[in-house]
Amino acid sequence: MSIHDGLRIGIFVFDEAEELDVVGPFEVFATWAEHSALKPQVSTFSWDGSGVRLAKGLRLVPAHSADDVGPLHLLVYPGGPGTRPLIAEPGHLAWLRAVQRQTPVIASVCTGALVLAAAGLLSGRPATTHRDHFDELAEIDASVLVDTEARFVDDGDVVTSAGVSAGLDMALHLVGRLESPECAQAVRHALHYEST
Amino acid sequence: MSIHDGLRIGIFVFDEAEELDVVGPFEVFATWAEHSALKPQVSTFSWDGSGVRLAKGLRLVPAHSADDVGPLHLLVYPGGPGTRPLIAEPGHLAWLRAVQRQTPVIASVCTGALVLAAAGLLSGRPATTHRDHFDELAEIDASVLVDTEARFVDDGDVVTSAGVSAGLDMALHLVGRLESPECAQAVRHALHYEST
Repeated sequence: MSIHDGLRIGIFVFDEAEELDVVGPFEVFATWAEHSALKPQVSTFSWDGSGVRLAKGLRLVPAHSADDVGPLHLLVYPGGPGTRPLIAEPGHLAWLRAVQRQTPVIASVCTGALVLAAAGLLSGRPATTHRDHFDELAEIDASVLVDTEARFVDDGDVVTSAGVSAGLDMALHLVGRLESPECAQAVRHALHYEST
Repeated sequence: MSIHDGLRIGIFVFDEAEELDVVGPFEVFATWAEHSALKPQVSTFSWDGSGVRLAKGLRLVPAHSADDVGPLHLLVYPGGPGTRPLIAEPGHLAWLRAVQRQTPVIASVCTGALVLAAAGLLSGRPATTHRDHFDELAEIDASVLVDTEARFVDDGDVVTSAGVSAGLDMALHLVGRLESPECAQAVRHALHYEST
């Protein structure tokens, strides 16, 4: 997997994932693709490739399954009520650990951080989540250094954002980090998201 | 249609509608439903009820068709490249005019305003759209009073927003107007969208 073939971004979707957690970063990264020399390719994928019903009822048909999405440079893991069953699924958590070994950046939105924590990915590291779930994050892994102020926390290969709309800001930060601040600014301009 | 049966919100989706134009207001209004005495019900619908492929490739399955979505209190009309064929479709524009006669509020996001203008809904009224399309809005209907500064323009039964992410702000404004500022604040809090 060379970055010259295009930077590959996968957004994991599942039943009861929060709508804006999925679509905020998707919109930012897909708009980036129109302004970038890195040719980012943004795909959605569900566990088995079948359609999902998101938290507020929106039905999405993903492009791929976890088996056929292929190697990624960046995995986006959204939050939502649907994280609950995933936290309790040992096979899914083992998959996440395996993905981490071959994925340069894993980025969660909102309560997606709870699943990352359950898989052990946040052990001893700074992270954030939706403010209503700080305690839960600490309960899952007491070694997580919960940042209760940040809109997102960039710890290199693991990046976590606060609730829902913070996923937009985290995604814009990643565009700036992975390409350039000028490119992130071009995306902000295209999305009318400058003053925020 | 009584408001006591729940305030009915329909989000029109079509091929090449912009992802965040659709999902930003959807997320705001669906979150409002969890904090509201007005029991808003938020549905997506496409022209014929079949699935759509949005501008950046996301595939959505709407809940309804234009025929079976039923009477609405609020119609949300997103923007995106897919507005182009709709602007040129007399049958669709006639449908929009008919919808306006029975719908208390029609709200466009981004270039959705171009379709409203093509249907004659913005004639002689203040409105906005994505900044790259101000000229196009004036070309479609020279009598539109294009507001080049506002993030959204509330003209009572017709509300228009600037580009993409401005749809979130317009939707939050409508929650404040249709229910209460406190309710809009509760939605902002749930979505971590306070500081913006």
